[in-house]
Amino acid sequence: MTMEIKFDEKGLVPAIAQEARTGAVLMQAYMNQEAYDKTLKTGYAHYYSRSRKQLWKKGETSGNIQKVVSVSLDCDGDCVLLQVEQTGGACHTGEYSCFFNLVQENAKVANSSLLYELYDLIGDR
Amino acid sequence: MTMEIKFDEKGLVPAIAQEARTGAVLMQAYMNQEAYDKTLKTGYAHYYSRSRKQLWKKGETSGNIQKVVSVSLDCDGDCVLLQVEQTGGACHTGEYSCFFNLVQENAKVANSSLLYELYDLIGDR
Repeated sequence: MTMEIKFDEKGLVPAIAQEARTGAVLMQAYMNQEAYDKTLKTGYAHYYSRSRKQLWKKGETSGNIQKVVSVSLDCDGDCVLLQVEQTGGACHTGEYSCFFNLVQENAKVANSSLLYELYDLIGDR
Repeated sequence: MTMEIKFDEKGLVPAIAQEARTGAVLMQAYMNQEAYDKTLKTGYAHYYSRSRKQLWKKGETSGNIQKVVSVSLDCDGDCVLLQVEQTGGACHTGEYSCFFNLVQENAKVANSSLLYELYDLIGDR
């Protein structure tokens, strides 16, 4: 499959990092061409910081790096999905995933999330 | 948790839809305030189409609706994660997930390895 990546008018694409081992969505950030190329070349997730206006290797200061398992593009090439092996928490708050603000829960779905929670809990000790 | 949602200068936030039952990341689209409100109120995923410049109920024409299981915001409130029960394929191409363009695969990770890691983790104590 030879899908071309399509950057927006700012030269960015949204990128989603998903923990390959648990399926948990960890964070969403942005990549420019350089970040995308470095991610592919080095095997570690790189993003573009819109606030600091610079390339950013995830975990460069915190140590919470993301080893890239796979890189995929969506159907129209304007979003990147990284499957990663996350070291430590993905979130700058220290949380495992950035998506810890639950706004609404309509149902409990029997997936293996309990197992993931257990994994986190034990991992934190 | 009372995180406020933060729309960008265009009044949009990226939204990620994840299949609640499998953990698969299905698609990434955008929401404006109206799409976000309708999603919360109706329990079905609504997005804002940037090309058609209008509110869009996912599956309205295809029937491939997304029943919302949970809605979460990330740490800084500028990205939405929907856990959904997807009817049919999420992608307009008919694919299950929009992220079918595999660009790079560095490793095979067995998702079930979680159990073994957990076992090891506990065993190590």
